[in-house]
Amino acid sequence: MKKTRFNDGMEQLKAIDGIGGENVIKSLEDISPDLGRFIVEFAFGDIYTRKSLNLPERELITITSLLTAGGCEAQLEVHINGALNVGVSAKKIIETFLQCIPYTGFPRVLNAVFVAKKIFHERSITV
Amino acid sequence: MKKTRFNDGMEQLKAIDGIGGENVIKSLEDISPDLGRFIVEFAFGDIYTRKSLNLPERELITITSLLTAGGCEAQLEVHINGALNVGVSAKKIIETFLQCIPYTGFPRVLNAVFVAKKIFHERSITV
Amino acid sequence: MKKTRFNDGMEQLKAIDGIGGENVIKSLEDISPDLGRFIVEFAFGDIYTRKSLNLPERELITITSLLTAGGCEAQLEVHINGALNVGVSAKKIIETFLQCIPYTGFPRVLNAVFVAKKIFHERSITV
Amino acid sequence: MKKTRFNDGMEQLKAIDGIGGENVIKSLEDISPDLGRFIVEFAFGDIYTRKSLNLPERELITITSLLTAGGCEAQLEVHINGALNVGVSAKKIIETFLQCIPYTGFPRVLNAVFVAKKIFHERSITV
Amino acid sequence: MKKTRFNDGMEQLKAIDGIGGENVIKSLEDISPDLGRFIVEFAFGDIYTRKSLNLPERELITITSLLTAGGCEAQLEVHINGALNVGVSAKKIIETFLQCIPYTGFPRVLNAVFVAKKIFHERSITV
Amino acid sequence: MKKTRFNDGMEQLKAIDGIGGENVIKSLEDISPDLGRFIVEFAFGDIYTRKSLNLPERELITITSLLTAGGCEAQLEVHINGALNVGVSAKKIIETFLQCIPYTGFPRVLNAVFVAKKIFHERSITV
Repeated sequence: MKKTRFNDGMEQLKAIDGIGGENVIKSLEDISPDLGRFIVEFAFGDIYTRKSLNLPERELITITSLLTAGGCEAQLEVHINGALNVGVSAKKIIETFLQCIPYTGFPRVLNAVFVAKKIFHERSITV
Repeated sequence: MKKTRFNDGMEQLKAIDGIGGENVIKSLEDISPDLGRFIVEFAFGDIYTRKSLNLPERELITITSLLTAGGCEAQLEVHINGALNVGVSAKKIIETFLQCIPYTGFPRVLNAVFVAKKIFHERSITV
Repeated sequence: MKKTRFNDGMEQLKAIDGIGGENVIKSLEDISPDLGRFIVEFAFGDIYTRKSLNLPERELITITSLLTAGGCEAQLEVHINGALNVGVSAKKIIETFLQCIPYTGFPRVLNAVFVAKKIFHERSITV
Repeated sequence: MKKTRFNDGMEQLKAIDGIGGENVIKSLEDISPDLGRFIVEFAFGDIYTRKSLNLPERELITITSLLTAGGCEAQLEVHINGALNVGVSAKKIIETFLQCIPYTGFPRVLNAVFVAKKIFHERSITV
Repeated sequence: MKKTRFNDGMEQLKAIDGIGGENVIKSLEDISPDLGRFIVEFAFGDIYTRKSLNLPERELITITSLLTAGGCEAQLEVHINGALNVGVSAKKIIETFLQCIPYTGFPRVLNAVFVAKKIFHERSITV
Repeated sequence: MKKTRFNDGMEQLKAIDGIGGENVIKSLEDISPDLGRFIVEFAFGDIYTRKSLNLPERELITITSLLTAGGCEAQLEVHINGALNVGVSAKKIIETFLQCIPYTGFPRVLNAVFVAKKIFHERSITV
């Protein structure tokens, strides 16, 4: 079967974000299916499939960007789970957040750490 | 000699940012030497010296956070140089910026890529 | 009766944001009535009453700015309703959000689309 | 000839941003040609070609988002020119910026107005 | 007993944020005790203990920065309480928020005022 | 003579920002005189004239908000001068910036300190 950007993207999305990512796409079906399609095709099909960075590195970059932007707690939840799913340890996730302190200050870091705390608790992970 | 947070930090700062980082600290001497000291002691002494992430990973996180925040071109210049100094390839730096597109949009990524372009040119680096 | 900035503003506020806007002003009465007055006089009396843009255009600009700023979900709720009230279609509201993807990335757009989804559901609107 | 996302995008890019947009893509050739390609394919090919909003409306949304994000003066320059190129009047561009005051405050609006002032001067446009 | 950065910081933290601040530090114990330590040592031990600004002035600056950053409602709650604890009047807190309108626009100010409204109600304070 | 919002505002603007502030208003005359009028009437006429905070306090709040927002170096220049003009010491301005470190991180603070350094040099002020 011919590989397409959409199929490539869905494969990545499932590998990284699992159920959480698929649920976001599904929740867009009745309001903006094109938005879901763009996320799959462009973000996951075009970007995540590229060489030069592996998936754990891509997820560290993603959670750093979401932490810094602020107000992206829902997306942080998806991608902290994503980071764990591709093999980043809970310890390394928290350390990534601490590395942001000098660049973002404490409030953004606290917000991200509390999202991680909730997820680690749900997945019974101890740091 | 007893290690101190300041000495630890200066060691890190030199390893990572080289002349560029030291120049920032020096340029603060007549306006706010304490700000320079906090950068050395806290950012470099307390944070960069920690385990769980290596320096190349810390620099990827740093340039991601600076790109996302926006308006930090001067600091991006220091830390793109820093990333190169600790062994991150030019290719990987650019790839880190591309990974941010879905999370920050194109303008922030363009701004960061143009800072990198200037630095790669100065250091005669081809991507 | 002599028209005043406050009266002009209240007229605009009612036309655009209906009950939602008036509730914001009322909820400020016991904490900062002057803040409510400034919103009515300046935002609605001075700005919304101007020529060169019609109300549907002003609301597209407003929801774009709120989406981009982030963390303004409460205000987005008021102004997505406002956009609908002055005749912007649900389809056009969603399309406005999609136009922001290249400039803000996906997370801000997703947050805005989910606010719209809730409002369209409450008002029984199908996109 | 089969239409592709890239060709569609280049057509839009030329119509909207003219020389300015093409120069951005060209300036990426030696540092990140893929970034240029993504801008053409995704931003212009996938998004700008869509229905439900016309080009003048898309440009009003774009300059609003860039103004609000801050630190995007280079991109504002491209898209204020773009807005003029697709028929938005100078007066309407300035009015769009004024509509943002209640949502972003004065500094972001001032920054955008001064970019517009420079462009209107270059193009000998009087507001 | 020899004073340390941590002890100095805890003293400040208790004086300013009381129970609210201590609860934040405690809630970090099982996820990132080092983050709690850095907040106490650096933010409260190094910064809040400095001369040239008194505590009420420091709290006005802090709530202004949190309002402007956006998405920091949890931290605003801690520091609006902190401002009250070090003797800033409710009236002055609200006035600080109003002073931000020209620089941040109304939405950020509204978000902060509604956090203050909740706190003043809890503490039975009338503005 | 009857006092008006515009006259009140011009009086404040001159007291605070002196030549710098008037120049901003003048530079808007040929592009958007209404923007200049809104700054004078609303920011300076309505807000700066209020009770509960004195001018030095208002300027500390303003420079904090501008530092935190980022990308507002032009406005920071006007208001660091403004702070000095209403009697805030250079030392207190720098201390205000240091108080922001825990909330904004170092880059925003560095950007603001370098604007202050330039101004203090121009005005031959030693910290």
